[in-house]
Amino acid sequence: MTVDRMLPTPEAHDLLDLTAELATRELAGKVDDFEARGEFPRDVLRTLGRSGLLGLPYPEADGGAGQPYEVYLQVLEILAGTWLGIAEAVSVHTLSCFPVAAFGTPDQRKMLPDMLGGELLGAYALSEPQGGSDAAALATRAVADGDDYVVTGTKAWITHGGRADFYNIFCRTGGPGARGISCLLADATTPGLLPQATERLMGLRSSAPAQIVLEGARVPRDRLVGAENEGFAIAMKALDAGRLGIAACAVGLAQAAVDYATGYAKEREQFGKAIASFQGLGFMLADMATQVSAARALLLSAARLKDAGRPFSIEAAKAKLFATDMAMRVTTDAVQILGGYGYSAEHPVERWFREAKVLQIVEGTNQIQRMVIARSMTGG
Amino acid sequence: MTVDRMLPTPEAHDLLDLTAELATRELAGKVDDFEARGEFPRDVLRTLGRSGLLGLPYPEADGGAGQPYEVYLQVLEILAGTWLGIAEAVSVHTLSCFPVAAFGTPDQRKMLPDMLGGELLGAYALSEPQGGSDAAALATRAVADGDDYVVTGTKAWITHGGRADFYNIFCRTGGPGARGISCLLADATTPGLLPQATERLMGLRSSAPAQIVLEGARVPRDRLVGAENEGFAIAMKALDAGRLGIAACAVGLAQAAVDYATGYAKEREQFGKAIASFQGLGFMLADMATQVSAARALLLSAARLKDAGRPFSIEAAKAKLFATDMAMRVTTDAVQILGGYGYSAEHPVERWFREAKVLQIVEGTNQIQRMVIARSMTGG
Amino acid sequence: MTVDRMLPTPEAHDLLDLTAELATRELAGKVDDFEARGEFPRDVLRTLGRSGLLGLPYPEADGGAGQPYEVYLQVLEILAGTWLGIAEAVSVHTLSCFPVAAFGTPDQRKMLPDMLGGELLGAYALSEPQGGSDAAALATRAVADGDDYVVTGTKAWITHGGRADFYNIFCRTGGPGARGISCLLADATTPGLLPQATERLMGLRSSAPAQIVLEGARVPRDRLVGAENEGFAIAMKALDAGRLGIAACAVGLAQAAVDYATGYAKEREQFGKAIASFQGLGFMLADMATQVSAARALLLSAARLKDAGRPFSIEAAKAKLFATDMAMRVTTDAVQILGGYGYSAEHPVERWFREAKVLQIVEGTNQIQRMVIARSMTGG
Amino acid sequence: MTVDRMLPTPEAHDLLDLTAELATRELAGKVDDFEARGEFPRDVLRTLGRSGLLGLPYPEADGGAGQPYEVYLQVLEILAGTWLGIAEAVSVHTLSCFPVAAFGTPDQRKMLPDMLGGELLGAYALSEPQGGSDAAALATRAVADGDDYVVTGTKAWITHGGRADFYNIFCRTGGPGARGISCLLADATTPGLLPQATERLMGLRSSAPAQIVLEGARVPRDRLVGAENEGFAIAMKALDAGRLGIAACAVGLAQAAVDYATGYAKEREQFGKAIASFQGLGFMLADMATQVSAARALLLSAARLKDAGRPFSIEAAKAKLFATDMAMRVTTDAVQILGGYGYSAEHPVERWFREAKVLQIVEGTNQIQRMVIARSMTGG
Repeated sequence: MTVDRMLPTPEAHDLLDLTAELATRELAGKVDDFEARGEFPRDVLRTLGRSGLLGLPYPEADGGAGQPYEVYLQVLEILAGTWLGIAEAVSVHTLSCFPVAAFGTPDQRKMLPDMLGGELLGAYALSEPQGGSDAAALATRAVADGDDYVVTGTKAWITHGGRADFYNIFCRTGGPGARGISCLLADATTPGLLPQATERLMGLRSSAPAQIVLEGARVPRDRLVGAENEGFAIAMKALDAGRLGIAACAVGLAQAAVDYATGYAKEREQFGKAIASFQGLGFMLADMATQVSAARALLLSAARLKDAGRPFSIEAAKAKLFATDMAMRVTTDAVQILGGYGYSAEHPVERWFREAKVLQIVEGTNQIQRMVIARSMTGG
Repeated sequence: MTVDRMLPTPEAHDLLDLTAELATRELAGKVDDFEARGEFPRDVLRTLGRSGLLGLPYPEADGGAGQPYEVYLQVLEILAGTWLGIAEAVSVHTLSCFPVAAFGTPDQRKMLPDMLGGELLGAYALSEPQGGSDAAALATRAVADGDDYVVTGTKAWITHGGRADFYNIFCRTGGPGARGISCLLADATTPGLLPQATERLMGLRSSAPAQIVLEGARVPRDRLVGAENEGFAIAMKALDAGRLGIAACAVGLAQAAVDYATGYAKEREQFGKAIASFQGLGFMLADMATQVSAARALLLSAARLKDAGRPFSIEAAKAKLFATDMAMRVTTDAVQILGGYGYSAEHPVERWFREAKVLQIVEGTNQIQRMVIARSMTGG
Repeated sequence: MTVDRMLPTPEAHDLLDLTAELATRELAGKVDDFEARGEFPRDVLRTLGRSGLLGLPYPEADGGAGQPYEVYLQVLEILAGTWLGIAEAVSVHTLSCFPVAAFGTPDQRKMLPDMLGGELLGAYALSEPQGGSDAAALATRAVADGDDYVVTGTKAWITHGGRADFYNIFCRTGGPGARGISCLLADATTPGLLPQATERLMGLRSSAPAQIVLEGARVPRDRLVGAENEGFAIAMKALDAGRLGIAACAVGLAQAAVDYATGYAKEREQFGKAIASFQGLGFMLADMATQVSAARALLLSAARLKDAGRPFSIEAAKAKLFATDMAMRVTTDAVQILGGYGYSAEHPVERWFREAKVLQIVEGTNQIQRMVIARSMTGG
Repeated sequence: MTVDRMLPTPEAHDLLDLTAELATRELAGKVDDFEARGEFPRDVLRTLGRSGLLGLPYPEADGGAGQPYEVYLQVLEILAGTWLGIAEAVSVHTLSCFPVAAFGTPDQRKMLPDMLGGELLGAYALSEPQGGSDAAALATRAVADGDDYVVTGTKAWITHGGRADFYNIFCRTGGPGARGISCLLADATTPGLLPQATERLMGLRSSAPAQIVLEGARVPRDRLVGAENEGFAIAMKALDAGRLGIAACAVGLAQAAVDYATGYAKEREQFGKAIASFQGLGFMLADMATQVSAARALLLSAARLKDAGRPFSIEAAKAKLFATDMAMRVTTDAVQILGGYGYSAEHPVERWFREAKVLQIVEGTNQIQRMVIARSMTGG
């Protein structure tokens, strides 16, 4: 089913068509192989970068494409429907460019064209092993020493860990709590910045995260992004946008699953007719499609708030929560519609089912989203 | 919680403010009394008519307010949060003006200013006792006889039955099936048009429907709206818009329930602190608010398709399905948050809970919506 | 659909047959009228008492019927399917006899035959306006004064308030917290024991609760049940059993709704055939029936633990939680299956829908059940 | 959390203890390795056979253990909590012994001791590629030729395909429809009985099914089990029992997931305390535990009907439907509770999540169960 999209510009239509065409040509044939081997698709990302897809929501003056979030997120959606690992990589990379793009010094901003063009791949190192969801408690320390910060600690679940060219490292430069955190921009070549083996995961294997151990890693002080001790606000702002990215991935994954299951149900016969004609199954498909439409509408509604410069943090949390819970339900049902074939590696729905699960967890678990939303309502 | 709305014009903001103000001043104090007595609020509707709220989405040239559906539906939403009976009445009346506004003869259109101004209240008579959801099977017959149609049959679940000034009567003028149906515009004073006692319902008592028995009712042939035997298409088009109206009512109802439950949870203490501060309850509130936001976004997304002149029928069915199922869940939880107080007539949440249920049923049950959506997907 | 029950004795089969027969003969024709008028069915309860249904799980030596809980609860289930008000009254009365039956002095136990025979109707006064779910915080005080306790405070949501002949009043005789609470057996005629007007509720109107204001009510010290300051344990034990009673009511209500909706769906035609033959609707019925069976099995499994003298408190909480949430879903769907007719007072499903909601709230809201269960798992 | 089980005999307690001990000693250390390699654990099954676990519900006179289904299913439950592949294998093997045990000729029954002792592993070949859920439409033909049947066709999704020693092959010996099907007992060594490569699945890899191609396979006529053309009834009876087996696997899987997530939540800290102490998470655990208890109670209630010789087919369908849908929800939530760790292969919850999905599909998809249940209710 082609989604009927209302887009702000004709150029946006072209961009989405280009993305769909790229997905078909460059991604669809590779995904199974890369996922099976757990290989990171660095070259594929370079191709996307050259097509301008790695800096979409940033100003053209900085080397970006100047697209509104509303459009960027629909690009992510299309990519995720073909290869979540790529969409996730684009989302994380886009996020990783945010601190420099928004708060960088003129010198730091000189890296932007290479970042937004995809020559330099970024990572975003906030989580730690003991406090995945509790950013304010982070334990990685940076101590000023001459012209450097000396950084010690462990970052966990870092997408592009070991593959990135630069890392946004959030670390404690001051006292406890949310204040006292700074953002440092570290090159991958920094001595003492030690990526560990990638995690063995149930899905998203082509873009598995890794721990980053920091053993006295020296990051030059001129790589401080934003003011010292004010990195937490940067992290939170990036996370708000990152939540939209994950929500877009969820919508794309679920749309792909609905489309695939619908196509299967129209072909597969049981009891002498296409199973799509059984109302029990038709109602499942109708509910699935309805949920996807609702999630997309919520996501784009939050994106338009962001594009208009209005507060969007809570609506982003709602979109992340709703879209990813939805994707889990919809992909579970998509496997069901294919029956035994759905459980087999011959069809992509089992992959989408495995991938959906991770979206409920990353960029703040859905429990964290509920905390954020509840707090905004009750002032607690 | 004030909803942060992105509206197309400053005028729309004013309109919503006016609506909220009217709701507070004219509706809030009356709803319990009218619901308890099952009295139809004809005067209140006249007041709304004079404020221009009964013809919102029709051209100003016809006496309407020229508002896009996107805005009209948010007016309905606000009304529904205070008094569903009024919002439902506005929705049905607006629907009832559609056949004449879109297909009427010049003579018929002379009635439009009085219709859109609310002097003439409309009803929409499609359902029948034996085929609530199967419009194509309708049995009410109209036989041409001289300058009149002679109409015989029974219409069921007619909102404004016995209160309307005019009725859109869908009846069979030709063969079986969807073709062969016509739309007649009958005055309430038509001899043989016999409204029955209003139904005794669990809720929505101030706007309870009634059967209309047609015993050889004579409707002049110049009251045929649109072409003979082509009334089914009119009915379906009106229903598409009507579904958006019901979805808007559901969103408004649910938003009111979330707001009320949130307010209560911040005041009510148990175990020595506000119950809102218990995470179990906070998560319920977060899920409720998320669902309401998703339903509103889906609704407005479908409305924008309609406003842009693009196909919106399936998206309207999704919005009706999603928003009304959502409202049922959310109001059930809102009662729960108030506990015993939620079950008591001292608080409005028990009313919203009863009202939400009817929204899953009217303008095509949610099972019919699923059929419509499934058919669009599978071509079945 | 007749439920196929495995019962422990042939006598139990006879008892259930008798109950079903009583329900048809004495309850079915009265329920609508009593509910509409909000009249308490004292005489109907006397009839049940004479049939031996008001002391079922108590020893025959005390005037009870010596039935296991497994059987008693299925009696409740059948009653609830016809008239929840009666089933709730039987459950609360049975609960109210527990303190004396289990902890009463020989003198107090002389009342048991009249209690268990239903001549004396009981009430159970634990909740208070400011702490519905927080028993340990109760504020009603009893101060010893000569041969009496002088009791001051307010009890809320008391079933049979104003109709009972005796009240179990839980009040504070000692320090704060769970310790320091005592149980007093007060006659309805006690001066200063002042039942207030019954609550105006959405349902269960024939057995609506009332506040009991205690203004220096003097209860003789020999009416202390169990040891002083140890009443909390009595309250909790009674609540465990009471939860099973509410769960049984929920199962009975839901079973009645499934049966009624199934019968309707086999009769009602749309699109030329019985709506039961549409798979979308058949799947709804299948899910509803499955949920009812699961709830009944869980309930009886907890009852058998109790009957075997094993710990059953947590399983009772699970049964209450699951059965009442289930009944809310199933009755919501039952109304849906009848469509507009389901929303009308002409059919009982709208009543069951309203009644199901109260079961999620009474005897500890379902949030309290979740707290109890979670605490048993995590030791928190 | 140790489950508090009411078992019919002390012997049953011993059997469950033995099973738990075997699971810990023989299964727990092997499962990850066998699953990773997709290797079938034939030796492990032999060990179980020698412990008497491969013929539990059959008479001791035939070489079984004479256990009621109520007990046998709880053995399966415990096995499934450690290694679903083994539990599934035990369930399928037990099922595969049913035709001979119930309908076999004296000569065929001579195989029973080796079957029930696990020396001979069984398979059950009913499904076909084009009609997974529509048994009556099966296309595999057996034509009598001298002393043999010559069998041609393809069987799909056959557990133990290529590993079994004997196959129950359901094939068409007569006209179309349910009548005309026979059951043949074929040795694995039968020429023309050609197991294909095992399916590549998302989970249950150690016990993956395979297609069996039958190319003129000759099965001796004395291997006809039951009467000719009456095999469909055998298949259906075996399926009823098989559904209980799958339901038991689902309960065991879900119980393991609840226990593991609870243990994790008590250890893992966030925001300075164990995450189990957050009510949002505690409520999840409470709901999970409640669902598991309800599923087990429903399962055992159906088993007791079977053990009592009463009709249990519909209750088995309900148990299969409810328990497997429950296991899918509960394992999804268990992964969520572990967050990123739950998505990692370092913890077993991601495996249980993948395994739960297959249970909604096998032995009749849950849509087929709903059809069966609905038909029993509506007579359709």
